[in-house]
Amino acid sequence: MKLMNGMEYVESLRAYHPDIQVKGKKVTSVADEPLFKPGINAVAVTYELAHMEKHKDIMLATLPDGTKINRMNALDFSKDDLLKKLEATRLICKWTGCGQRYLMHDALGALAEITAMMDAEKNTDHFSVLKGYLDHVQKHDLTCGAAVTDPKGDRSKRPHQQENPDLYVRVVEKNQKGIVVRGAKANITGAPYMHELIVLPTRAMQQEDVDYAVSFAVRVDAPGLRMIAKPAGRPDDAEAPFSSNYGQSTALVIFNDVFIPWDKVFLCGEWEYTGKLAEAFANHHRQSCIGARAGLGDMIIGASALMSEYNGAPHNEVSHIRRSMAELIRITEGFFATGVAAAVYGHQTVAGNYVPNAVQSNIGKWMLAEQIYDIFRIAHEISGGIVVTAPTAEDMALPESGELINHYLGGKHGVTANERIQMARFIEDLTASKEGGFYSVISLHGGGSPEAMRMSTVRNYDFESQKEHILHKLKCFAKIEGTCKECVTCLNDELSEQEC
Amino acid sequence: MKLMNGMEYVESLRAYHPDIQVKGKKVTSVADEPLFKPGINAVAVTYELAHMEKHKDIMLATLPDGTKINRMNALDFSKDDLLKKLEATRLICKWTGCGQRYLMHDALGALAEITAMMDAEKNTDHFSVLKGYLDHVQKHDLTCGAAVTDPKGDRSKRPHQQENPDLYVRVVEKNQKGIVVRGAKANITGAPYMHELIVLPTRAMQQEDVDYAVSFAVRVDAPGLRMIAKPAGRPDDAEAPFSSNYGQSTALVIFNDVFIPWDKVFLCGEWEYTGKLAEAFANHHRQSCIGARAGLGDMIIGASALMSEYNGAPHNEVSHIRRSMAELIRITEGFFATGVAAAVYGHQTVAGNYVPNAVQSNIGKWMLAEQIYDIFRIAHEISGGIVVTAPTAEDMALPESGELINHYLGGKHGVTANERIQMARFIEDLTASKEGGFYSVISLHGGGSPEAMRMSTVRNYDFESQKEHILHKLKCFAKIEGTCKECVTCLNDELSEQEC
Amino acid sequence: MKLMNGMEYVESLRAYHPDIQVKGKKVTSVADEPLFKPGINAVAVTYELAHMEKHKDIMLATLPDGTKINRMNALDFSKDDLLKKLEATRLICKWTGCGQRYLMHDALGALAEITAMMDAEKNTDHFSVLKGYLDHVQKHDLTCGAAVTDPKGDRSKRPHQQENPDLYVRVVEKNQKGIVVRGAKANITGAPYMHELIVLPTRAMQQEDVDYAVSFAVRVDAPGLRMIAKPAGRPDDAEAPFSSNYGQSTALVIFNDVFIPWDKVFLCGEWEYTGKLAEAFANHHRQSCIGARAGLGDMIIGASALMSEYNGAPHNEVSHIRRSMAELIRITEGFFATGVAAAVYGHQTVAGNYVPNAVQSNIGKWMLAEQIYDIFRIAHEISGGIVVTAPTAEDMALPESGELINHYLGGKHGVTANERIQMARFIEDLTASKEGGFYSVISLHGGGSPEAMRMSTVRNYDFESQKEHILHKLKCFAKIEGTCKECVTCLNDELSEQEC
Amino acid sequence: MKLMNGMEYVESLRAYHPDIQVKGKKVTSVADEPLFKPGINAVAVTYELAHMEKHKDIMLATLPDGTKINRMNALDFSKDDLLKKLEATRLICKWTGCGQRYLMHDALGALAEITAMMDAEKNTDHFSVLKGYLDHVQKHDLTCGAAVTDPKGDRSKRPHQQENPDLYVRVVEKNQKGIVVRGAKANITGAPYMHELIVLPTRAMQQEDVDYAVSFAVRVDAPGLRMIAKPAGRPDDAEAPFSSNYGQSTALVIFNDVFIPWDKVFLCGEWEYTGKLAEAFANHHRQSCIGARAGLGDMIIGASALMSEYNGAPHNEVSHIRRSMAELIRITEGFFATGVAAAVYGHQTVAGNYVPNAVQSNIGKWMLAEQIYDIFRIAHEISGGIVVTAPTAEDMALPESGELINHYLGGKHGVTANERIQMARFIEDLTASKEGGFYSVISLHGGGSPEAMRMSTVRNYDFESQKEHILHKLKCFAKIEGTCKECVTCLNDELSEQEC
Repeated sequence: MKLMNGMEYVESLRAYHPDIQVKGKKVTSVADEPLFKPGINAVAVTYELAHMEKHKDIMLATLPDGTKINRMNALDFSKDDLLKKLEATRLICKWTGCGQRYLMHDALGALAEITAMMDAEKNTDHFSVLKGYLDHVQKHDLTCGAAVTDPKGDRSKRPHQQENPDLYVRVVEKNQKGIVVRGAKANITGAPYMHELIVLPTRAMQQEDVDYAVSFAVRVDAPGLRMIAKPAGRPDDAEAPFSSNYGQSTALVIFNDVFIPWDKVFLCGEWEYTGKLAEAFANHHRQSCIGARAGLGDMIIGASALMSEYNGAPHNEVSHIRRSMAELIRITEGFFATGVAAAVYGHQTVAGNYVPNAVQSNIGKWMLAEQIYDIFRIAHEISGGIVVTAPTAEDMALPESGELINHYLGGKHGVTANERIQMARFIEDLTASKEGGFYSVISLHGGGSPEAMRMSTVRNYDFESQKEHILHKLKCFAKIEGTCKECVTCLNDELSEQEC
Repeated sequence: MKLMNGMEYVESLRAYHPDIQVKGKKVTSVADEPLFKPGINAVAVTYELAHMEKHKDIMLATLPDGTKINRMNALDFSKDDLLKKLEATRLICKWTGCGQRYLMHDALGALAEITAMMDAEKNTDHFSVLKGYLDHVQKHDLTCGAAVTDPKGDRSKRPHQQENPDLYVRVVEKNQKGIVVRGAKANITGAPYMHELIVLPTRAMQQEDVDYAVSFAVRVDAPGLRMIAKPAGRPDDAEAPFSSNYGQSTALVIFNDVFIPWDKVFLCGEWEYTGKLAEAFANHHRQSCIGARAGLGDMIIGASALMSEYNGAPHNEVSHIRRSMAELIRITEGFFATGVAAAVYGHQTVAGNYVPNAVQSNIGKWMLAEQIYDIFRIAHEISGGIVVTAPTAEDMALPESGELINHYLGGKHGVTANERIQMARFIEDLTASKEGGFYSVISLHGGGSPEAMRMSTVRNYDFESQKEHILHKLKCFAKIEGTCKECVTCLNDELSEQEC
Repeated sequence: MKLMNGMEYVESLRAYHPDIQVKGKKVTSVADEPLFKPGINAVAVTYELAHMEKHKDIMLATLPDGTKINRMNALDFSKDDLLKKLEATRLICKWTGCGQRYLMHDALGALAEITAMMDAEKNTDHFSVLKGYLDHVQKHDLTCGAAVTDPKGDRSKRPHQQENPDLYVRVVEKNQKGIVVRGAKANITGAPYMHELIVLPTRAMQQEDVDYAVSFAVRVDAPGLRMIAKPAGRPDDAEAPFSSNYGQSTALVIFNDVFIPWDKVFLCGEWEYTGKLAEAFANHHRQSCIGARAGLGDMIIGASALMSEYNGAPHNEVSHIRRSMAELIRITEGFFATGVAAAVYGHQTVAGNYVPNAVQSNIGKWMLAEQIYDIFRIAHEISGGIVVTAPTAEDMALPESGELINHYLGGKHGVTANERIQMARFIEDLTASKEGGFYSVISLHGGGSPEAMRMSTVRNYDFESQKEHILHKLKCFAKIEGTCKECVTCLNDELSEQEC
Repeated sequence: MKLMNGMEYVESLRAYHPDIQVKGKKVTSVADEPLFKPGINAVAVTYELAHMEKHKDIMLATLPDGTKINRMNALDFSKDDLLKKLEATRLICKWTGCGQRYLMHDALGALAEITAMMDAEKNTDHFSVLKGYLDHVQKHDLTCGAAVTDPKGDRSKRPHQQENPDLYVRVVEKNQKGIVVRGAKANITGAPYMHELIVLPTRAMQQEDVDYAVSFAVRVDAPGLRMIAKPAGRPDDAEAPFSSNYGQSTALVIFNDVFIPWDKVFLCGEWEYTGKLAEAFANHHRQSCIGARAGLGDMIIGASALMSEYNGAPHNEVSHIRRSMAELIRITEGFFATGVAAAVYGHQTVAGNYVPNAVQSNIGKWMLAEQIYDIFRIAHEISGGIVVTAPTAEDMALPESGELINHYLGGKHGVTANERIQMARFIEDLTASKEGGFYSVISLHGGGSPEAMRMSTVRNYDFESQKEHILHKLKCFAKIEGTCKECVTCLNDELSEQEC
C-alpha cells in the first residue's frame, strides 16, 4: 500500500488528462492550473497530515492485515473508526476549510453496506466488485470524488417523467464488457483534481426509473466525460489570505455516453436499493460534514479570539464579548457532539463495516446547516466592523497612505494596524466574502437541505418504543390492569398505592 | 454488597427519624407521608431498575473485585462508565421525571478526585476517609442527597462579609472527635427521603472564608439537623396523572450545631480546594442533568406523538406537525449528544476515576436549560389547545355531562374523548402545570444557571491552541519565514507557491 | 348609553340564569360562584377602567353622535381607533392578565365588515341586523363572548363529512321567526359570565356545508344552551396571589336545538362568506392578542426587575441580568410594535369601519405565540430558582419555622424573606404554574396556531409587487430594453452606463 | 429651493475637488470614477425618486412656508413625518440596497434638538447656526455624510488618555473666525461622493476631554481634509449584477488641521452635551436603519419567491418552502414594525422637531442586526445550492458549453438555464458574496453594535412605572391597606373580597 505525500499527489494528477473547462478556458494541466490551486492544496493536506507523527492515530486506518492506509480511503470497522474519521475530518478542515476527500470515504462505506445487502438478498455479486475497487483505491492511495446530485429539472417529476430524459444519469447501453451511461451530475465537489469519480443515485428510484438505477466508478479522463468547473476558492483575490490558498472547485460533470466496465459497476438496475444507497451515503456523509464544519468553527474561534485582543476588547475581559465567545464554542462543540454520538451509537452492517447512527448524523448536519449563519454573526459581533471596512491592500502598500493608516488604525498597545487588518481580512475571507457565502450555502444544502434532514430524522426515529412507554405509564396510573409484569413500579405493587 | 429493591428502600427509611416539617406539619414517618410519596416512588425506581434483566448493563457498575453495585453508588472507572451513567440517568428519568439519586454519584466522583488531589499535594489523608465512606454507602446501597447551595444572602458579598454569619455553612467548633457545623443549605433535592446528605461548598472560598471551607456527610436524622420541605410533585392533584405518582421534594436544610465525626469529614479548612471541588461536582452533575432531561424529553416526544394521532393530525402525515416533531427530536438528541461527547472526551483523575469533559458537560447543561422551554412550546404546538382546556375530571365523572363530553370531544375514529383527555392531562402535567413550571426552572437553574455555564465553558476551553493555529496560518500565508517545520503545508514547500 | 362600573356589571349578571356546570356542580348564581370570581373580576376591570380619568382617552370610544362608550363595545372608525383599541387591550391585560372582553370587539368589527359586504354583493339585509344588535350591546354596555371554535372531530374531514353531524354548529330548522341551531363550541373564553355569546363559523365552508354556515348572537340563558365550564384562574390556590384574583374560565358550550330570532342572525347559508368572516375576525383578534400579551409582558418585566433587586443581583448593575432584561423588553415591545403597525397600515372596510393590516396582525400573534416561552425563560433566568423552591405558606405562618425562614432566606439588606417569597410566588403564578401553563398554551393556540398564522401571512402578502420590482431590476441591469419609462434610474438614462 | 434630479446631482459633484485615494490611486474626478459609480448611482436615486409622481408623498417634505424639499434634507415636524421618513428610507433601499443619504437627515435632526437644548440651558447661540446651515443644505439640495466613528485606539481609555492624541477628532486651535480640527473619522459611509460632511462626537465626553467635544460641518474639499476610500460595491465584478450597479463606499477621513468657520460649528467645548448628541443621532439613525434593511428584505423576498418558482418548487405550493417564506416576511415586517412604533411613539423636542421613540428605535435596529443573518439563511434555504454553484459567466458565453448548460440546468418548464442563473447570481450578490458579507456586518455594527442597543434599550425604558404597578398589585392582594384610591379594583371595594 502506498501513502503518498502532498507533492506526490499533485504529481500524480499529471497521469490524468480530463476534459475540463474553467471560466471559459480549457485546462491543459490540472496540476498547474492556478484556478484550481487552492483546491489541490486542500487535498494535498489530507496526504501530508497522514505523514505527521502526531496525527497518525487519527489520519491512518488499519486494514485487517495490519497495513496502514489513509483514513479517507478506509472502511470503518468499529465505532472507534467512526470516531477517528470524524476527528480526521475536523483536523483536515481546520487546516483547509474543506479537505473534500472524505466524500470518497463516505461513498465507499455506503457502497460496501448496500452491495453486501444486495448480494445477501438478491444473490448478486456486487460486493466483490466493490472490494476489488476498494483494493485499487487503497493500493494507489487515490482520491475520488462522489458524484451524487443530478440536475433534476422539474422537481415535481420523477426521472422517467422528465421531458428531457438526460436530467438524471442513466444507462443507455449494457453489454458484456460493461455499460454506457449518459446524463450529468451537478455541483460535484473537487471534481477537476480527483483521480476518479464514484457515481451514486441521488434519490430512491421506482420501477419505471430502472434505467436510472446505477452506481459506478470512473476515471476523470474517461472518454466522453466532460467538466465545466468553477475556480477553487478565490485564487486571484489579493484580499483573500485564506481562500487564495485553500478552496473547493465545484463542477458540472457531463457523461456523454461514457463506457464503464463491469468491474467498476456497483449497482445496475436494482432500483429497490437506490433509496437505501442514497440514505447510507447520507448517514456517513452527514457525520463527515459535522467534523468538517467543526474544523471551520475552530478557525473562526481562534481568529475571533485574536481579533478581540487586537481591538483591546479581549474575550476574556469584556463581559459581552465573553458571552459571545461562549456562544461560538457552544455552537461548534454542540454540533460536533452529535458526530461523536453518531459514532458511539453507530452499528455494524451486513458488510461488516460500521455506519453512524442516522438520527444523530442528521440532527448534527441540520444543526450546522443553520448555525453556520450564527457562527458568522457572532464572529462579526466579536470582531467589529473593521472586518469589512479595513483599507485596501493597495492603500496600505503606498508609503504615505500606509503611514496614515498606521497612525490611525493601530489596536491596543503593541498591535500594529497591519496586524489588525490582516486578521480582519482573514475573518472577512472566511465569513463575509464570496468564500464565506459559499461556505454558508454549502453548509446549508451540501449533504442535503434542512428539510431532507428533518425527513430523515423522523424516518429513522423509534417512535414506537416511546409511545409504548407512555401508554404503559397511563395504563399503570389508571390501574386498568391488576398486575403488570413488565413495569418496574408494578414488580412491587405495594410500592405505591397509586400504581398498579 | 447489598442491592435493595424498591420496597426494601422504602422500608429502610423507617430506620431514620429526621426532624422534618412539610406544609406546616411535622412528619412522623417519612415512608408513610403522602406528600413525599411521589419522591419516594421515584427513588424506589432507581433500585428496581437495577434488578431488571434488560437494564442491568447500564444500571449496575462493577467494582474492581467484580462485585456489582447500583451505578448511582459507583465511581466511574472508564469512559464507558461515564457513558453508562449518562444512559442510566436517562432511563431513570424517563421512568420518573427525575430520579434524584444521581446527585450522590456526582458528589462521590468529585470528592474522590479532590480528596486524592489534596492528599497528593498537601499530604493530607482525606482520600482514605472518602473511600471508607464510599464502602459504607455501597455496602448498604444507600441514597444520599447532595447539599450544595447555601442561602447566600447578599450576593455581592463573600461568606465572611455577610452581616449574618450563618448564610453559608461553617465550622463553629473542631475537636478530637470531629467538627460542629452551623448554617443552612437551600433547595436540597429529595432531602427528606435520603439516608444521608453529602455537603459540599457552593463556591470557591478565600482565606478569610476558611471556616466556610468544609465538606462532610451526615445522616438525615443527626441531632440538630432540621428540614423545612416542600411536597414532592403534586401528590393531591387529581388532574396530575404523572406528578401525583412521581415528583421531587426540595428542602431547606438547617444545621443547628450538628456534630460530624472525622470519618465523615472530607475537607475542612483547605479553602484553596473549595473552588476545584465545586467545579468537579459541576462537571459530573451537569452531565447527569443532560441524561435526566433527555429522559424527560423522551416522555414528551412519546406523549406528543400519541396526542397528534388522537387528534387526527398525526405527526407522520401532517407536514407542519412532522416538522415540529423533528425539532423535538433534534433538541432532545442534540443536547444528549453533548453528554455522550463529555464521556468520550472525559479524562482520568489523580484518584483513578474518570470525570466528564468540562466543555461538553457545560454546553449540554446550558443547551437543555434554555431548550426545555422550546420543548414545552413544541409539545404544545403538536398537541393543541386541549392540553389546557380539557373538561375537569368531575364533569367527566357525572354520567350526563360525561356523555355530552364524549359526544363532542372524541378524536379521530376509534379514539374516545376519555383517551384524548387523559393524554392531554398527562402533557399538561409535564409541561403546563406547577410541575411543568418546576421542571423548567429546575432545568434552568439546577446545577448552575446559564451564566455559570458560560463562565465554565470559556474557562475550560483551550483558546491557546486555536490562536496558535491561526497565527501560524497567517505567518505561513504571508511567507514571513522561509521554512516552517511545524506546518504540514510547509513540510513540502514545493507544494504551493503561495505558501512558505 | 350606559357606562356600567365594575360592581354594576357583577350585579347585572343576576338577570341571567344560564345552565352551567363547573367541576361537576350546577352553578346557581354566576355572580356568586367563587370558581368564576377571578374571571368576573377581570371583566369588571374593563368596566372600571373606563371610569378612570387618566384612562378615558383609550378606554372610551366616541360614536358619530358624540356619545362615549366602552371601547370594547365599539367599531373602529379610524386607524387611531385601531391603535387605541390595541392600547386599551394592553392596559386591561396589564391589570388582569386577560380581560376577555375584547373578543366581543373583534367579533363585532368582523361582522360589520362581512355583513356589509354581503349586502353590497348579494343584496341581503344583514348589516342592518348587525347594527341593531350593536345598538343593543352599546345601550346596555354588555359583554359578549365570541364562540368560534367547533369541536371538529376528525380534522381531515369537512363538516358535512363527519360521522357525527353535530361536530360543527348547524341550522337544523329555519322558520319565519328565526332558526334553530344544534352543535357545540369548544374552549369558549369567559362564557359563564358573559351576557351573550356571538357565534361565528370557525372556518371556510363549502356548498355542501351550507347548513353549517351560520352566525348569530344568543343570550347565555337561552333555552337549550348549556355550558360545561372550567374554573377561572386558580381561585382556591393559596400560593397563587395573582390567579386567585384574576383568571379566565373556558367552557364547552352546547347548543341543544336553541332558537335564534332573525334579529340576532347575521349570516345563514351564505357559505361563500364564512371564510372571509373567520379571517376578518382573525385580523381583529390577532391584533387584540398582541395588546393582551404585551400587558402580560409588562407585569413580568416589572416583577422580574423587582425580584432581581430583592436578590441583590439588580438588573441595572449585573451585566448578564441586564442583558436578559433587555431581551425581555425587546420581545414585549417587539411584538407590540406589530400591533401598532397593524393599526397604522389598517384599512377601511365597505362597512366604514377599520380593520388592522392582516400581515402585521398575523406576524405579531405568531411572534408572541412562540415568544411567550422565551419570556418565561428569561423571567426565570433573572429571578432565580426561588421562584419554585420558596417554602410553603404554611411553613412561613408557623412562628418557629417562619423565624428560621426569615433568618436564612432574606435578600439584600432591607428585604425580608417574606417580601422575596411573595414576589417569587407572584412570578411562579404567572410563569411556572398551572396558570402560567395556561397562558403559554393560550398564547400559542388562542386566536389560531402558528401554522394558521404562517398560512395567513403568505396569503395576505403582496408577492406580485415584490417580484415585479426584481424582474424590472434584472431587465434594467441586463439592458434588455433601450429605455424604460417606469424605472427611476432609467428616467435619466445618462445616469449610469450600466443601466438602461 | 432646488430639487435636483439624479443627473444634476452627479454633475454637481464636479464643483468639488476632494483629496481622495481609492485602491492606491488618486481620484481626479469623483463623478467619473468607476470605483465610486455604484455609490453615486445609489445617491442619485434619492434625487430621482423625489421627482416621481407616485413617490412624492413620501419623498418630499414640506417646510412651514409650504416649500417642498427632499425628505432626506428635512427635519421631522410630526409623527407622520417620522413615519414618512421611515417609508422613504425603505423605498430608497429597496431600489439601491442602501441610499446612504438618510445619515444627513439623522444628523440634522439630532443637531436641531441638542443645539436648541444647549441654547435653552446654557444661553448659547448654536441653534441659529444650525438653522443657517439647514437653509444652506435645503437651498442647494445637498447630500452630506455623517462622520461619527473615531478610530478609538485602545478602547479601554478615554480620548484624553490615549497615547496618540489624534485618535479622536479634536480642536487644536480656536480663533475669531473659527476653529482648526485634527484627527480622523473611520468607516464614513459614502464620504467620497458627498458634498459636505457633518461631524458628530462618537461618545459622551468628560471634562478632561473638552477639546474633543466638537461638532461641525465641512465641505469634502476643505484644505487638509483627506480620504482613503474603498470602492463602492463591486464595480468590476461581472458576476455581481446588483452591486456592480449599486453600492456604498466607506472611507477613512483624515482631518489634518482643517479650518472650520464659526458658521459651521454646532458644538465646541460643551462636553456635557456630547453624550446627548450621540444618543439623539442614534435614535434617528437606528429608525432609519430599520427602513433601510426592510428595503433590502423586500428585494430578497422578491428574488427568493422568483427563484423558488424557477426551481419548480414554488413558495406557494411546497409546504416547507412556504414556511420559510412566511419566516422571511415575519422577520422583515417584524423589525419594520418597530420603526413604525418608534414614529407613533415619537416625541417633540425643544427645537420643535420630532424624534423617534428610543426603545422602539433600539430594539428594531437590534433585531435587524441579528436577523440579517437569518434572512440570508432562509433566502438560501428557499433558493437552493445553485446560488453559489451556477457556472461562470464565461462558460455560459461560449456557444458549446453554453448549450450544455442550457441542456442540463433549465428549471421548470419555460424557465431557461440563463434565467435561473441570473436570478441565482442576483441572490448570491445580495447574500453570499463580498457585498452580502458587507451588508451583514454593516447591519450588525453600523449605527451601533447589539451591545450598544441593549444598553440604550434598558437606559430608556421606564422601569419605575412597571415596578410600581406590581408593588401596588401585591399590596392590594395582601390587603395591606384598607382602601386605595388609585387602584381601579379598589374603587369599588365590594368588587372582590380578595382585594383591598
